[in-house]
Amino acid sequence: MNWYTEQWSNDCKFSIAYDKKIYSEQSSFQQINFYQGKEFGTFFTLDGLMMVNEKDEFIYHDMIVHPAFATNPNIKKVLIIGGGDGGTAREVLRYPNVEEVVMAEIDERVFRLCQQYLPVTARGVEEDSRMKLRFEDGLEYVRNAPDQSFDLILVDSTDPVSVGEGLFTKPFYKECYRVLNADGILINQHESPYFAEYAANMKKAHTKIKDIFPITHVYQYHMPTYPSGHWLFGFASKRLDPLKNLNVKAWEQFGLKTKYYNTNLHIGAFGLPNYVKEALNR
Amino acid sequence: MNWYTEQWSNDCKFSIAYDKKIYSEQSSFQQINFYQGKEFGTFFTLDGLMMVNEKDEFIYHDMIVHPAFATNPNIKKVLIIGGGDGGTAREVLRYPNVEEVVMAEIDERVFRLCQQYLPVTARGVEEDSRMKLRFEDGLEYVRNAPDQSFDLILVDSTDPVSVGEGLFTKPFYKECYRVLNADGILINQHESPYFAEYAANMKKAHTKIKDIFPITHVYQYHMPTYPSGHWLFGFASKRLDPLKNLNVKAWEQFGLKTKYYNTNLHIGAFGLPNYVKEALNR
Repeated sequence: MNWYTEQWSNDCKFSIAYDKKIYSEQSSFQQINFYQGKEFGTFFTLDGLMMVNEKDEFIYHDMIVHPAFATNPNIKKVLIIGGGDGGTAREVLRYPNVEEVVMAEIDERVFRLCQQYLPVTARGVEEDSRMKLRFEDGLEYVRNAPDQSFDLILVDSTDPVSVGEGLFTKPFYKECYRVLNADGILINQHESPYFAEYAANMKKAHTKIKDIFPITHVYQYHMPTYPSGHWLFGFASKRLDPLKNLNVKAWEQFGLKTKYYNTNLHIGAFGLPNYVKEALNR
Repeated sequence: MNWYTEQWSNDCKFSIAYDKKIYSEQSSFQQINFYQGKEFGTFFTLDGLMMVNEKDEFIYHDMIVHPAFATNPNIKKVLIIGGGDGGTAREVLRYPNVEEVVMAEIDERVFRLCQQYLPVTARGVEEDSRMKLRFEDGLEYVRNAPDQSFDLILVDSTDPVSVGEGLFTKPFYKECYRVLNADGILINQHESPYFAEYAANMKKAHTKIKDIFPITHVYQYHMPTYPSGHWLFGFASKRLDPLKNLNVKAWEQFGLKTKYYNTNLHIGAFGLPNYVKEALNR
């Protein structure tokens, strides 16, 4: 048996058996590996960290996309930063109201390889006429975008190292604020509260975003293949509150079948454990 | 480095580094091992499965105990089945209203060894005058208990194999129903929805309990050292509903400081993902 192993902390690791390594490439930005196994189907890693697998990608992609649309069902213009596997775009494109989706992914190779090896997330994305693919640095993209040009920004990034680093900085969040319109929402990959290294990144991101956006929340979900299985997204906005403005009726009228998300879970996801709230506010 | 490794499924495993194996014993019932490491402190396993560790025991013990007390703040008589590490009793004993706590633990060695090696959960439990320790089979204990003699039963068991098997059967749940009074609540260790073997146990337990109790719910929490990190408890009762009867004010008046539980999280814990709800109802 071959094992893909990821260190979750110095003293803790998670291993997945795979039948074969399908593909491996050092792109201009990172090491990309694709594996295939029984429990998780096809999965790929960037610089040795699990990104997406066929078994639980639905959890991450439901949770990065649907809470924003249930808070503002009128979202029309969406900017995805990162998200090279295509899963986030796939979920956004299910909303008929959406008119334009820009995906600024720094590494085109991730997207092209997912089109080839991970159709569950990438298939159909490029073909949708509302999609605008920009293979460039997300930070650069927002710097050059006009004021108030998006309703929603989804930061679907790696951890704050390598290509993901700039997406956890105050200048980046400031640019996001500027390009969002008055009802704008920023959702960002917010790391995890449990292992010290990830918790430190969680706190840093939250502190920076709180300085810029008037409304900031953090919400949680069960993502078994990410370290500790307890993973977070940030919800920041200029005006809309994910609980007070939750529009259950409007969201249900979209008639979307989801495997993880529902509007009760939406409310529950914001009910953080005390130790997480304390860490965020410290 | 020494590694304790647990298979979470045939194709997936979780490993924890430890500095030393503190103690090992084959009791009359099971293999008991204690380890000590940096990330998780002291932890112990039964038949090779992680039971309790110093880093995240607070999550499990908060979640098995506090939702019931926030639903019925007048709980006075409590029966704990299993729970040999003492952590569940520790949390129950924090409520001044509680008059009697019976702990029916089949394996006295687990409790004695936790008193010695895991004081964070076991310390002070035996010394509390409200505690009645019964080192006997939990199924036998409830069979012999009088009708309507408890306000709350907490089934703090292992998986449904070996000593835990009888605690996942219909005759056991029927006896629990009988010994609970009209406001009685049954909380049971309810496995996990993510890996197939655990999900099958989750479904079996739920189906059996639904046949006996008029009110049945399942709630979730983030338990990083259990398989997938997505773990469940069952909430069954004769009359009280954990959401409709949630008494936020009364629970907050207890003034208990908790590291995981709060009443917003209580509500959120019942907001299950669609795939879990569908599996439970299938």
